[in-house]
Amino acid sequence: MSSTLDKLRRARTAAPSLALLTSQPKNAILEAMAELLAAGQETILAANRADLESNELRPSSRDRLLLNPARLADMLAGIRAVISLPDPVGEVLAEWVRPNGLRMRKVRVPLGVVGVIYESRPNVTVDAAVLALKAGNAAVLRGGREAVHTNERLVELLNQAPGLPEGAIELLDSRSRDSAAELMRARGYVDVLVPRGGAELINRVVEQATVPVIETGAGNCHVYVDKEADFEVADRIVINAKTQRPSVCNAAEKLIVHRDIAAEYVPRIVERLRAAGVEVRGDEQTRRLAGEEKVGAACAEDWLTEYSDLKMAVAVVGSLDDAIAHINRYSTRHSDAIITRDATRAQRFLDQVDSAAVYWNASTRFTDGGEFGLGAEMGISTQKLHCRGPFALPELTSVKYQILGSGQIRQ
Amino acid sequence: MSSTLDKLRRARTAAPSLALLTSQPKNAILEAMAELLAAGQETILAANRADLESNELRPSSRDRLLLNPARLADMLAGIRAVISLPDPVGEVLAEWVRPNGLRMRKVRVPLGVVGVIYESRPNVTVDAAVLALKAGNAAVLRGGREAVHTNERLVELLNQAPGLPEGAIELLDSRSRDSAAELMRARGYVDVLVPRGGAELINRVVEQATVPVIETGAGNCHVYVDKEADFEVADRIVINAKTQRPSVCNAAEKLIVHRDIAAEYVPRIVERLRAAGVEVRGDEQTRRLAGEEKVGAACAEDWLTEYSDLKMAVAVVGSLDDAIAHINRYSTRHSDAIITRDATRAQRFLDQVDSAAVYWNASTRFTDGGEFGLGAEMGISTQKLHCRGPFALPELTSVKYQILGSGQIRQ
Repeated sequence: MSSTLDKLRRARTAAPSLALLTSQPKNAILEAMAELLAAGQETILAANRADLESNELRPSSRDRLLLNPARLADMLAGIRAVISLPDPVGEVLAEWVRPNGLRMRKVRVPLGVVGVIYESRPNVTVDAAVLALKAGNAAVLRGGREAVHTNERLVELLNQAPGLPEGAIELLDSRSRDSAAELMRARGYVDVLVPRGGAELINRVVEQATVPVIETGAGNCHVYVDKEADFEVADRIVINAKTQRPSVCNAAEKLIVHRDIAAEYVPRIVERLRAAGVEVRGDEQTRRLAGEEKVGAACAEDWLTEYSDLKMAVAVVGSLDDAIAHINRYSTRHSDAIITRDATRAQRFLDQVDSAAVYWNASTRFTDGGEFGLGAEMGISTQKLHCRGPFALPELTSVKYQILGSGQIRQ
Repeated sequence: MSSTLDKLRRARTAAPSLALLTSQPKNAILEAMAELLAAGQETILAANRADLESNELRPSSRDRLLLNPARLADMLAGIRAVISLPDPVGEVLAEWVRPNGLRMRKVRVPLGVVGVIYESRPNVTVDAAVLALKAGNAAVLRGGREAVHTNERLVELLNQAPGLPEGAIELLDSRSRDSAAELMRARGYVDVLVPRGGAELINRVVEQATVPVIETGAGNCHVYVDKEADFEVADRIVINAKTQRPSVCNAAEKLIVHRDIAAEYVPRIVERLRAAGVEVRGDEQTRRLAGEEKVGAACAEDWLTEYSDLKMAVAVVGSLDDAIAHINRYSTRHSDAIITRDATRAQRFLDQVDSAAVYWNASTRFTDGGEFGLGAEMGISTQKLHCRGPFALPELTSVKYQILGSGQIRQ
């Protein structure tokens, strides 16, 4: 296997050719990729079996790593969704003429080389490569050690697509930790690095990277049930946000309840959460209202924790302002919701809660590129620089100023 | 003086109040700041004299640090220019409705806390604070050690503006190196850090920062004189780009000449550069054509170096493609120009040179917020993430998704 630096150089070299590809050849390459993956299904599944057999995995990790015909079909559908998305490259974002006659043009261009560090899910290999390509970028991928055979096979197949410049998709050796460290510090080779995975991975990248990073993912999400809430709506949203898929980042982890309705609502929702298999923790008031035998004591740590599990901590607050303050203190700024019938109170929450996605009377589970109508997603940014929330093709581009003169000089 | 952490906390606490300020009160605060600086002119100049006297400075550093009534008037004009700029906060960038009835709204919001690390020029203190404020952000400033009295006085005056939330402008202690290191690693407190200064400062920030960074400034800029160039236009632009203000980042450092015209153009431009006081270095062909007594030998290092001085290195290339390849190899991706009469060749250069600003028949010296018509600038980004080229108010914001539902849950 060639070294990380060789691969980074190849990706850097591929970037200018990729930037010049128009939509039609890019879409043809993507279609060829889908066909290659379909034709290679048996070899992909065999590689995936090898990964599943050579690792001792917990059921949840095993599930993340597993590929089957249905999941492969989803991958292919994903590629075709990306084919149908508009190509962001070349879009003229603004044009104007200066008093000295200079004609200014602000144009969307690819970022260049997009690095992605991720964990076990092999669909990220295909999603990331395909999104990077459609936006005219080379991709340098560093997947999880457990998925090494699957990822190698997937990238081999993708790279067979006719017309794809050499170096457009490079897979780093996931057996060594060095390759990740090199990728994080590949200044001059990588224009952006996207970590996708758990908090530990993301923190390591943020701590060590010297290339620009888009932080993704961690979601300590809140649902606030206001004193003006419709309880039916609140029940439905709290249960959905907590239980529909507890392992993902947009699942709710915390429930905040306004004091004026706490005596009625807290016992009611605790019953329903417990009936749905959720372990409930709470502050003193919650425990007093719902019964200490039903609600464990939440410690300071709980308010900060993304459980990613069927657990929820409940706090009672004295006012809308207190709810906003609690959320701005503990939220990972991913997705937070208010349940209320009062539009004014809702708008205050939407304006003052400092998170990527803020909801009024809807589940936090909608924070997702597909659900937003973006057609795909590279990740969900929890930072404020470059992009925030679900991001896909336009966010995998940069801009450049093209300036047309007739001999102008500066006085 | 309170600790860096106290100041970061105060800025973080100020951010939500600043985010809620509408344009009118922000502009009133800015106007009050201009009046306070005008009224405090004598005390500012006295503080500046104290800085000038307490440091042993080279003439160029002394000039950067120096304030006088004319420069103060420029500062005030800068504040009034920012007052007249549109407020980016609250702009609805997109609105759409999903098939499930969710109403989606993508809204511009302030970044929150903007950190700036810079060197001796005290006008950055005012420019940065004022731009950050207009975009609804708190500013945490860490200026140069030489400018400590001037910066303290400026920030004292700015902070007296009625209506400004406490913590909106925090000045870190520039006497200690620790304050810079703390600012670079202030995760959770700082949403973006902008280093403004020389290559050494910028590299230190990129290397050490764990907060998101917008890299600015270094400019190894090129002018390429094509075989189809109008020599009169080329002369004018080369001399302007090199000599009009050689110390700044958008000054040209390198001249690339097409082989077919080199025999005629190289001796001609070398004469003119030398007549303008420029020390010329060159590759073998340049030296042969212009005379080795007139052109020193350029070494490998020269092609990478931003001289920021009356020096220029000249290379002869065999084709437009070679010119593009040379520039993409050595440029800091700031500003590069082609001089040609041929529109097709020009467009190839504009499309393929991977720099923030690419010029056809105009001087690289125009890369500047004011010259672009943006009204002001926070810096010139040489990275591709978040913003590229001169940036000001819109680039000091982020976005948020506000999602209005009626009880929607995810299936």
